[in-house]
Amino acid sequence: MAAIKVHGSPLSTATIRVLAAIYEKELDHEFVLVDMRVGEHKKEHFLSLNPFGQVPTFEDGDLNLFESRAITTYIAHEYADKGTQLIYKDSKKMAITSVWMEVEAQQYDQAASKLVWELAAKPVLLGMSSDTAIVEENEAKLAKVLDVYENRLAQSKYLGGDCFTLTDLHHLPTIHYLMGTQAKKLFDSRPHVNAWLADITARPAWLKVLALQKKQ
Amino acid sequence: MAAIKVHGSPLSTATIRVLAAIYEKELDHEFVLVDMRVGEHKKEHFLSLNPFGQVPTFEDGDLNLFESRAITTYIAHEYADKGTQLIYKDSKKMAITSVWMEVEAQQYDQAASKLVWELAAKPVLLGMSSDTAIVEENEAKLAKVLDVYENRLAQSKYLGGDCFTLTDLHHLPTIHYLMGTQAKKLFDSRPHVNAWLADITARPAWLKVLALQKKQ
Ligand SMILES: N[C@@H](CCC(=O)N[C@@H](CS)C(=O)NCC(=O)O)C(=O)O
Ligand SMILES: N[C@@H](CCC(=O)N[C@@H](CS)C(=O)NCC(=O)O)C(=O)O
Repeated sequence: MAAIKVHGSPLSTATIRVLAAIYEKELDHEFVLVDMRVGEHKKEHFLSLNPFGQVPTFEDGDLNLFESRAITTYIAHEYADKGTQLIYKDSKKMAITSVWMEVEAQQYDQAASKLVWELAAKPVLLGMSSDTAIVEENEAKLAKVLDVYENRLAQSKYLGGDCFTLTDLHHLPTIHYLMGTQAKKLFDSRPHVNAWLADITARPAWLKVLALQKKQ
Repeated sequence: MAAIKVHGSPLSTATIRVLAAIYEKELDHEFVLVDMRVGEHKKEHFLSLNPFGQVPTFEDGDLNLFESRAITTYIAHEYADKGTQLIYKDSKKMAITSVWMEVEAQQYDQAASKLVWELAAKPVLLGMSSDTAIVEENEAKLAKVLDVYENRLAQSKYLGGDCFTLTDLHHLPTIHYLMGTQAKKLFDSRPHVNAWLADITARPAWLKVLALQKKQ
């Protein structure tokens, strides 16, 4: 039995964010499917793992964590010597990477997640129609964030610095879904963003996550 | 001239979040006022410090950072030996603290910041009226988060564990503003949340931040 367990759904952005870190680190683990269609994530057992009733949750021996970005941060530090180095040891380089991790969570994801919901989840998974006003508002917000990224990526190969780090990794799930929607144009039209995206989505660890998603 | 400079506004929640960390660490610093009324944060010089045109930004010698939570994290690590210890050295304790730092940013702040805007900023600073539908929606969201906090704080003195950490500190600015609004009742009605709030808002470092705010 693996010490590391991820409880989640392979369709969930937050779940595949954690799996991406696990595959980059080549960690032995067990994936425990949470059947969200029957509301398993709102049942007592699951709420004892995450009181917010959201996937994923994570176990490493007797340590139980939730919130995808807290989990990836733990993995990057605890397994620093394994697989891809996802953080910097140098404190100033790490501080800059942290800034761009916050940018992902505070600026990019606020718009990107709403677009994933409106343009991918609602029409494809739930057979509902998208709310055009919300889509327009968030495409405008995302475009502004990607303008900043375009400048940043003209100077730096990756968002956090010269190396691929957690910062870049945290974007993969939402980028993956947005590539199948009209929001793709916002990425395509910015050459440095586009080159960055081509690079990070072709990583072997990420391709393994997508293969797992298809199998389910 | 101090090596550490904070550029911001003493009314801004993100700015006083950083000042709280600096006062807990008793760090020598210079506060540089950004006059947001004349749009100084959207001018070229400021945009070179933070491309999103938001306060605060932070300098430590030649290191330039933005995003309040990235700044406090840098301060906590870089000045680990000074003033209050705001993080854990133990990796498992730190992982739990990180979970609750993410909860603040991903769950609590999404509702709390909107309520600060609607109930404090708009009516008091801008002479505008609050949007009742947005207030109701976010009071309901905040109430759910505070239910989780009430359970957590029944078992643990602080959100991240037995000690005051960055997790608790990150809540101070929004709590401060919400205490002057109708949303205060959501905190008052939950005894463990209320005791926690009384404890963290009485910290000498925080009282110094509020004194500075009054002086400006
Ligand atoms: N901030 C959380 C978000 C987790 C989240 O929103 N999970 C979604 C699936 S991607 C979920 O469980 N939704 C069900 C719900 O919120 O009830 C994280 O990063 O882990
Ligand atoms: N996520 C950022 C938020 C910064 C932020 O929203 N600052 C506000 C003042 S509290 C601001 O500069 N607003 C002006 C603007 O967004 O144009 C942080 O934590 O530093």
